[in-house]
Amino acid sequence: MEVVRKNFKEALPLISASIDKADFLVIDTEFTGLINGRDVSAFDTPEEYYYCLLKGAKDFLLIQYGLCAFYWDHNRKCYMNDTYNFYLFPRGKVGTEKMFLCQSSSLDFLGAQGFDFNKVFKEGISYMTEPVETRLRENLLEKQKTQAKEKDAITIPDEHKTFVEDVCNQVRQFIDDNKSDEMEIEKCNSFVRLLLFQEIRARFKDEVLIESKILENKTRVLKVIRIKSEDDTKNYNAQKNEREWEELEEAVGFSKVARMISQSGKLVVGHNMLLDILHTLNHFFQPLPLDYNSFKEFSNCMFPVLLDTKYMSSLPPFKDRVNSSVLQHLFSTLSSKPFSIPTVGSLEGRGYRRADDKHHEAGFDAYVTGLCFLAMHGHLSRMRGEEHARPSATSAVLKPFLSKLFLCKTAHQDSPYMNLAGADPTPSRDHVFHLTFPKEWQRNDINQLFSPFGPVTVQFVEDTSALVALSRREQAAGVLRALQARDGVALLPYSTYKRLIHQTSSRSDAASGDCKTVHPSEIKARQVLASNVSPPTPQSSPVPVRVPRERTRSVPSPAIATPPAPAHPPVLAPAPAHAPITCKRTSSGVFQTCSNRRRKNSDTADTDSHVSHKRPNTPNNGHQESSRTAKQEKVKGNKKIIEKFDSESKSHCVTAFKESDSWD
Amino acid sequence: MEVVRKNFKEALPLISASIDKADFLVIDTEFTGLINGRDVSAFDTPEEYYYCLLKGAKDFLLIQYGLCAFYWDHNRKCYMNDTYNFYLFPRGKVGTEKMFLCQSSSLDFLGAQGFDFNKVFKEGISYMTEPVETRLRENLLEKQKTQAKEKDAITIPDEHKTFVEDVCNQVRQFIDDNKSDEMEIEKCNSFVRLLLFQEIRARFKDEVLIESKILENKTRVLKVIRIKSEDDTKNYNAQKNEREWEELEEAVGFSKVARMISQSGKLVVGHNMLLDILHTLNHFFQPLPLDYNSFKEFSNCMFPVLLDTKYMSSLPPFKDRVNSSVLQHLFSTLSSKPFSIPTVGSLEGRGYRRADDKHHEAGFDAYVTGLCFLAMHGHLSRMRGEEHARPSATSAVLKPFLSKLFLCKTAHQDSPYMNLAGADPTPSRDHVFHLTFPKEWQRNDINQLFSPFGPVTVQFVEDTSALVALSRREQAAGVLRALQARDGVALLPYSTYKRLIHQTSSRSDAASGDCKTVHPSEIKARQVLASNVSPPTPQSSPVPVRVPRERTRSVPSPAIATPPAPAHPPVLAPAPAHAPITCKRTSSGVFQTCSNRRRKNSDTADTDSHVSHKRPNTPNNGHQESSRTAKQEKVKGNKKIIEKFDSESKSHCVTAFKESDSWD
Repeated sequence: MEVVRKNFKEALPLISASIDKADFLVIDTEFTGLINGRDVSAFDTPEEYYYCLLKGAKDFLLIQYGLCAFYWDHNRKCYMNDTYNFYLFPRGKVGTEKMFLCQSSSLDFLGAQGFDFNKVFKEGISYMTEPVETRLRENLLEKQKTQAKEKDAITIPDEHKTFVEDVCNQVRQFIDDNKSDEMEIEKCNSFVRLLLFQEIRARFKDEVLIESKILENKTRVLKVIRIKSEDDTKNYNAQKNEREWEELEEAVGFSKVARMISQSGKLVVGHNMLLDILHTLNHFFQPLPLDYNSFKEFSNCMFPVLLDTKYMSSLPPFKDRVNSSVLQHLFSTLSSKPFSIPTVGSLEGRGYRRADDKHHEAGFDAYVTGLCFLAMHGHLSRMRGEEHARPSATSAVLKPFLSKLFLCKTAHQDSPYMNLAGADPTPSRDHVFHLTFPKEWQRNDINQLFSPFGPVTVQFVEDTSALVALSRREQAAGVLRALQARDGVALLPYSTYKRLIHQTSSRSDAASGDCKTVHPSEIKARQVLASNVSPPTPQSSPVPVRVPRERTRSVPSPAIATPPAPAHPPVLAPAPAHAPITCKRTSSGVFQTCSNRRRKNSDTADTDSHVSHKRPNTPNNGHQESSRTAKQEKVKGNKKIIEKFDSESKSHCVTAFKESDSWD
Repeated sequence: MEVVRKNFKEALPLISASIDKADFLVIDTEFTGLINGRDVSAFDTPEEYYYCLLKGAKDFLLIQYGLCAFYWDHNRKCYMNDTYNFYLFPRGKVGTEKMFLCQSSSLDFLGAQGFDFNKVFKEGISYMTEPVETRLRENLLEKQKTQAKEKDAITIPDEHKTFVEDVCNQVRQFIDDNKSDEMEIEKCNSFVRLLLFQEIRARFKDEVLIESKILENKTRVLKVIRIKSEDDTKNYNAQKNEREWEELEEAVGFSKVARMISQSGKLVVGHNMLLDILHTLNHFFQPLPLDYNSFKEFSNCMFPVLLDTKYMSSLPPFKDRVNSSVLQHLFSTLSSKPFSIPTVGSLEGRGYRRADDKHHEAGFDAYVTGLCFLAMHGHLSRMRGEEHARPSATSAVLKPFLSKLFLCKTAHQDSPYMNLAGADPTPSRDHVFHLTFPKEWQRNDINQLFSPFGPVTVQFVEDTSALVALSRREQAAGVLRALQARDGVALLPYSTYKRLIHQTSSRSDAASGDCKTVHPSEIKARQVLASNVSPPTPQSSPVPVRVPRERTRSVPSPAIATPPAPAHPPVLAPAPAHAPITCKRTSSGVFQTCSNRRRKNSDTADTDSHVSHKRPNTPNNGHQESSRTAKQEKVKGNKKIIEKFDSESKSHCVTAFKESDSWD
C-alpha cells in the first residue's frame, strides 16, 4: 500500500492494526545519500564504522520507508504480509525548514530504479524528531496564548504610503457596500502584505478579519473577511487555533509510525540495516549521539530486538552457499534447495506478491527481506526438528543473530557486526601494517615487497601510503624486522599508526578547544621513512605529523579515552531549559511521548495521540519483556515523571543478551 | 523547447544559432535552495551581501536553466523568441560525483509550481566547472595511455576461491564450446566482480575480452566476449576509448551552453539576477572566489553586459508605478498604460507565447522577463523620441542599468545594487544604531524609546538586540546623547557595532590561523549595557565580545583590510601543477577553453568543440568590443599562451563603464 500525505491520516489506524497483529516487522529505507566524509576502512572498529556513517545519517534525508508486517493467517496456514511504502519529506509551515544533503550518484541510482521523486517532494509525508516536536508544541501554545496582545508597529515607508491608503480605502468601500463577505488583495510583495495586515487590522478591527492565505501554487494573497457577529470573531479564532494544531500533527507525520514500531517491542528485521537504524533514530527520535556507547544504548532501548538478514546469511549454515548477499542474489539463492521460500499471501491491495518485482522500492525490499528471513528461519528450524515454528522476538533459534548489525565493509577482516546489546568483536590487527612507499609504486610492487610473507590485502590510503594485511597472519612477527631496512619504504604496526592519528588529533583538539578528528588517510608517515620504525612512545614522540586542515567529526580516542569536549555536549542530555527529552522505553514496554503531546491546555490530558491509544498508560498494562530494560518507570498516582534518556547511566540497558558468539 | 539529456546533443546547434542571431539573451534559473547560513541584513554592504549568498551558491544545485533568445524578424517587424528550458543534473560515470544541499522550503515551492523533479534526476543534462573538466580530460588521457600496463594483483581470499574457479571453468567451457560470442556473469557483489575481472583477464588474455556492464537498472554484470581475430581486440579498445571521450563530452554538457552565452558578448538580461549569475559562474565556469573584488572582476569578464529588470523597474520613470516588482506583478503593471508589452512571436515549438502561463518554469520566466524588458526599453525609447529603437549592448538608453544587479534586501536602505563594473554605492549608516534591550521588550517598546526622533525601522538581531534605523535621518546626531542614560538599554552607532564584529572576527582568526567570520547577529553588546556608549577605539578596546563557536565564512574586514588568510588561497589562482585555469575573455571576445579540449593525442588540434566552431581561434576573427577587456591575448604563431584568470591584476577589467549614476 502506497502511503503519501493525502492518505496518511486514514492509513494510520490500518498501520497500527498491522503492527499489532504481526509476528515480526521488516523495514527498509531509501536516502538521498550514503557516505559524507571518509568512507569506512576494512580495518575499522565498529566504533569507527559508526563515526564514518554518523555524519551521513545526520545530513542526508530519509525519503522512503518500507514497513512490512508479517502476520499468521490461521485459516490459510501461512504468513500474510501487510506492506506500506511511505514517501517522506519533512515540510510544513510550522517551522520545520530543513537543509539536507544529496549525493548525485544516489539520486541517479534511485532514478534508474524508477524512483518517483515527484511523489517525495510533492506528496511526501512530513516527519520530525521528538525534541523538535516538543519545541514546536511549546511555541504554538505560547503563540496562541499571546497573539491577542501582539502589537507590531512597523513604520510605513514613504514609498508605500499611497498604496496602503488606496487599499484601506478599498476595504472601507467593501465594508460599506456590503455586497460580498470576502475580498482578496493581490499583487503585493511580502513587505507590503505585512504593512497592509497591520494597517487593516488596526483600522477595521471590529469590522473585518484579515488573513494571509497561501494559494495552491504557493502564491500568497491577503483575504479580508467581513465580521457579521461577535461569534464570527470567536469562531474564526477557535478554528484558526484548531487548524494550527492539525498542521502540527500533520508535520509530526511519519514519526508516529516509527514510534509505533518502537513501542511494539516486536522483532524488527532488515537487510544490511545499520543505515536504516541510524536514519530511523536520527530523523524520527533524536539526533544521533556523538558518543558510540550512547548510540548503542539509545538504539537498544528503542529497538531491543533487531535482526539483520545480511548478518544472518553470513553465518553457517548459510555462509557457504551464499556467494553474494546482495538482497536479490540472496533471495535467488534461498529459492533453491536446500532452502525454500515459504508461501506468503496478502489481502488485496494490502501487501506485495512475489510477481510484483519492484526491487529497490523500500516496501518491496522489506517484503523480500521478510521472505529471506522466513526461508532462513525455516531452514534453521528444520535443522532443529521444529518444522512449524514461527519466528518471534524470543525464538531460541534466532538468539545468536539478535541486535547484531552487519558491517559489510569490515566483515572480511573479522569485524562482521556491531553488537547493540553487548560487546563488539575486537579482532587482532597484528597482521596489518601501515606502509609508506615511493610515489611510482603500484599494487604489484607492494605484493612483491611482502612476497616472503605470502599474499596480502592492500588498501590504499594515499598516493604513497597503504594499509597492508597479511593473509598468513602467523607470519606477522617477522615483517618489521625483515622490511624495515628497505630503502624508500617505511612500515608501522597498525596499532602505532592508529595511536599516532589519535595523538595528533587530541593534541590539536587541546589547542583549538574543539572536538575534532583526523582522517586516517590524512596522516603521512614520511617522517619515519628510512629511519627507526619502532613504535614511538605516546608521551615523548617528537614525530611531526601533518594535521590536515579540514576535520569534521569527533572520534574519541579509545586509547586516551578523553571525555567529549565541552564544545559538544552529548546530544541526548541537553540543558534542561530546552526541550526536555522524553523518549524512554519503560519497564512496561511503553515508549513514552507524554511531554510531547498536544497541549491546548497544559492541564488537559492528551486524548488524541495515536500512540497512547494503543497502549494505555496505566503502569500495569502491557507488562512484557520487563527483564530487557531495567529502569523502572516512576509512577506517582496518575502522573508520570518523565525521565530523560540519560546516556551516562548505561549499566542496565546494555547488559542483556550476553549470549555466546559461538557461531562466529 | 524543453531540453533534457536525450535531445541535448541535437539541440546544441539550434541553441548556438539562436544565440548568434539574438539581439539580446534572457536567462533564469531554479536552484535547490536559496540561503545557507545567515540571511542578508537590510544594512549590509554589497560586499557583505555577496558573502551571504556565496555559500548557498556553492552548496545548492542549479537544476533548471531558462535561456530565451530575442531576435528581430524583419518580415514580421517584430521580435521573436527562441526559448530553451534545460533540466540539469550533474551526473556521470566519469567521476563527477557531487554532494549538494537542498532547502526543503525551496523544493516544496518548486513542487507546488508543478516542477518535475523526475526530469531533473532522471533526464537532467550534466554540467561541470572548467577546472573539473580539465582534470577529467587529463585523467582520461593518462588512463588510456597507461591502461595497457595496468597490473592489479589482488589476492583472492580463501572464501572466494571456489567460486572464482567455478566461473573460470565456465569461461573455459564457453571458449571451448564455441557456440556463442558472449556470456554474462551475474549474481556477484562488487568485490567478486573485481576478482573475476582480474582472473579472467590473466588466464584468458588472448581468448576473451571482459567488461563490466551497467544494465538499464544500474545492475552491474560482467560480460565475457570471444576474441575472434586480432582486430577484435584493437577495435574493441578503440571503441572503448572513443566511448569514454563521448561520455566525458556528455558530462561537460550544459556548461558548453553557458560558455556560449559568455562568449557571445551579448546583452544578457535577467530579473533579480544576482543568484542566477552566482550559480552560473560557480557551476559552469569556476568556483566563486572568496574575495569580493575578484568576484566582480570575474563576473564582469564573463558577462560584461548584464541588465537586471528588477533594478531597472526600481528607478524612474518606472519606480512610482511599480508597486511590486515580483515578476508576475511587474508584467501585469507593464501590460497597462502608459506602458505596453510589444508583440513577440515564435516559430512553432521554438518559443513561448503569452498564453502559455508556465510561471516559475525557468524558460517561461526568462521569456516574461524579456517581455518586461522590451516594455521598459520601449517606454524609455519613446520618451527619447526613438520610437523604433532595438535594444543592444551599446544602447545609450540602457547604459545606466548595465552591470548593476539588484539587491532586493538592502535596496530600501540606499544600497540598491551591486555594480560589477565599478564602485558600489556607499550609503551612510549614521542613522542606524545597534540596540541592546531587556528580554521582555517588544517592537513597540523600541518604537516608544525612539519616538522623540520619529518613526524607525527595526531589524531584530537576537532576542535582546536589534538594529534600529531612523526615518528622519537628520535626527541621528541627537540619539546617543538622549538615550544613553536609559536604564536597561545600550546603544552603539552602527559603525562601532560593525567594527566590534570585525575585530572579534579577526582576533579569533589570528588565534585559530583560520579564515572565519562572526555573524553580526551573534555579537552581544551586553558589555556596554548601561555603561559608556562612546565608540571604543579598535586598538585599546577591552570590551569582551562573545564569539560564537560556529563560524563558517570568510568576510574580510574592510576596516582592517586583512589579505585573505593563507588557509584559503584564492580559488582563481590555483597551484600551477593542478588544473591550469583557462577561462579568459580575450581582446577578440573569444572565451578560451583551449586547454580544456579533448586531447586524444596532445598534438592533435581539437575539431569537435562546439564553441570553437562558432568562433575560429585565429586572432583576427570576431574582433569586437576590444575596449571592454584590456588584457591582450598573447599569440605566438598558431599557439596561444593561455593565461589563467588572475584575480590579482584587476586594473583593467573593472575600469570600464564609469558612467554616472545620475538616475539613482
